[in-house]
Amino acid sequence: MLDSWRDGPARRAIEDFVRRTTDPASPEVIPSDERIVVSDNDGTLWCEKPMPIQLDFLVRRLGVLATADPSLRDQQPYRAAYERDIRWMGTAMVKHYRGDDTDLGLLKAAVTSAFDAVEVEEYDRAVRAFFAEADHPTLERPYRTCGFAPMVELLRYLEAHDFTVYIASGGDRDFMRPIAPELYGVPPERVIGSALGIDYRDGQLLYRAEMDFFDDGPEKPVRIWSRIGRRPVIAIGNANGDLPMLEFAGGGLPALRLVVRHDDAEREADDSGGAEDLLARAEQEGWTVVSMKDDWEKVFD
Amino acid sequence: MLDSWRDGPARRAIEDFVRRTTDPASPEVIPSDERIVVSDNDGTLWCEKPMPIQLDFLVRRLGVLATADPSLRDQQPYRAAYERDIRWMGTAMVKHYRGDDTDLGLLKAAVTSAFDAVEVEEYDRAVRAFFAEADHPTLERPYRTCGFAPMVELLRYLEAHDFTVYIASGGDRDFMRPIAPELYGVPPERVIGSALGIDYRDGQLLYRAEMDFFDDGPEKPVRIWSRIGRRPVIAIGNANGDLPMLEFAGGGLPALRLVVRHDDAEREADDSGGAEDLLARAEQEGWTVVSMKDDWEKVFD
Repeated sequence: MLDSWRDGPARRAIEDFVRRTTDPASPEVIPSDERIVVSDNDGTLWCEKPMPIQLDFLVRRLGVLATADPSLRDQQPYRAAYERDIRWMGTAMVKHYRGDDTDLGLLKAAVTSAFDAVEVEEYDRAVRAFFAEADHPTLERPYRTCGFAPMVELLRYLEAHDFTVYIASGGDRDFMRPIAPELYGVPPERVIGSALGIDYRDGQLLYRAEMDFFDDGPEKPVRIWSRIGRRPVIAIGNANGDLPMLEFAGGGLPALRLVVRHDDAEREADDSGGAEDLLARAEQEGWTVVSMKDDWEKVFD
Repeated sequence: MLDSWRDGPARRAIEDFVRRTTDPASPEVIPSDERIVVSDNDGTLWCEKPMPIQLDFLVRRLGVLATADPSLRDQQPYRAAYERDIRWMGTAMVKHYRGDDTDLGLLKAAVTSAFDAVEVEEYDRAVRAFFAEADHPTLERPYRTCGFAPMVELLRYLEAHDFTVYIASGGDRDFMRPIAPELYGVPPERVIGSALGIDYRDGQLLYRAEMDFFDDGPEKPVRIWSRIGRRPVIAIGNANGDLPMLEFAGGGLPALRLVVRHDDAEREADDSGGAEDLLARAEQEGWTVVSMKDDWEKVFD
């Protein structure tokens, strides 16, 4: 079933773990209701280079706000969004890595208030409209086809062995929910992610202009417990923010930890920036590293 | 399948709604992935008189703390807990209803800090130990048998028609999770409730001495959305705090709202205190009221 996985240590580690934990005769068998899988999304299940897909959605939203209110065009990041100046966004990130958060601060504030008082089901429709038409800027394919084919195949393989898959992402929960069923076969109730605050008024739920929580780093195990009430036995990530989640896996049960390494300049990207600690820990602990270049027969469908 | 429900308007409303929304030939049929049921717990699925079951658990915990630290016995509510003076707790509630929150404030502060820095899986074991031995003070039966038999039957009936049941309670999420599978057939990932803050440290999750959120009133629809990402089509409650959740049900889909009325002095309790607004709204909107006295053949198994 793992046809887009080349024979190698990663594929063998996956198949071996599944055999050991699902064969009824195995001493390490895990009951099916405890076969919980959590996977990061950006860079793990879908492409996050050159920028997270959600950022494109948000920049378009800021552009819409700047179109409706011309006075916004005098300030960043609205001007950049209105002029489709993606370079400004990239520079904000570069400045951030150099310790200057001025521009990133402006971007965060704008993004947090971009859906102030928007009703959750209206947001859901906006996300669906985005995925119906938006294309990836460099891959030249619709975003809704930017899931990594071997990973989608892996999710189906795990489900066929009675594992239950949750997405545990730093991305916005309600941004992933409308597309996760089509892209990953994961229903909305199994999408865990960052969240804006929400108010209830007269039968409707409206977003607040503030984060409820940012689901990254040590917050990931907290949100996994809050949602599921169990530890995962398989945890999959690609960046330092996934480290606590991988560490949390298992408890008294066997655990499989997978780290997706972006080392494929030709088919995706060769860039492990932001994954240094995770890769070092993986090597130290013997966690399974998945090389996009060596382990995957293809990257996209 | 609803054998402990007497023939009457409540049972007929339930059966009619299920027929209309699950018969493939019905114009009102709801796809099975949208057949979401949310039910309150205290007073709806299990007995909350004379006091919530969780309060008994918490008072025992305060007693353990006061046993370990004698200096605590000089202050309330530790003294009452240590001396098993349940009357003090009752008086705190009576004072609260009269507008004096002094004692209730002491109780809340003690309860919030009662599990400070306790690991979530240790708490889970403490809850299991409580339910393995604790009896209801007046019904003289184990707490784990205090679920309302007709309600458990209703959950099974709905599941047989491809509805998915969630508990949406003001009670502590992690207090209900260990017992919900045995009592209601509801797994931990489908238990929504109030939550303490949690910190992640070195592979473990530890409770903080502060609430993350109190899942009652307008917070219930917020937490239902956060967890499920859909509106429920069946919502069941018994108190004013359930009103927003019942109001939120449906959206563009048909909805069934059930209100459990405690009017059975002989078999449970005749007491609608705290349900006045909900019952008034139910009458105004034609929501289905379930009379424990008239509609249920039996209350407990």
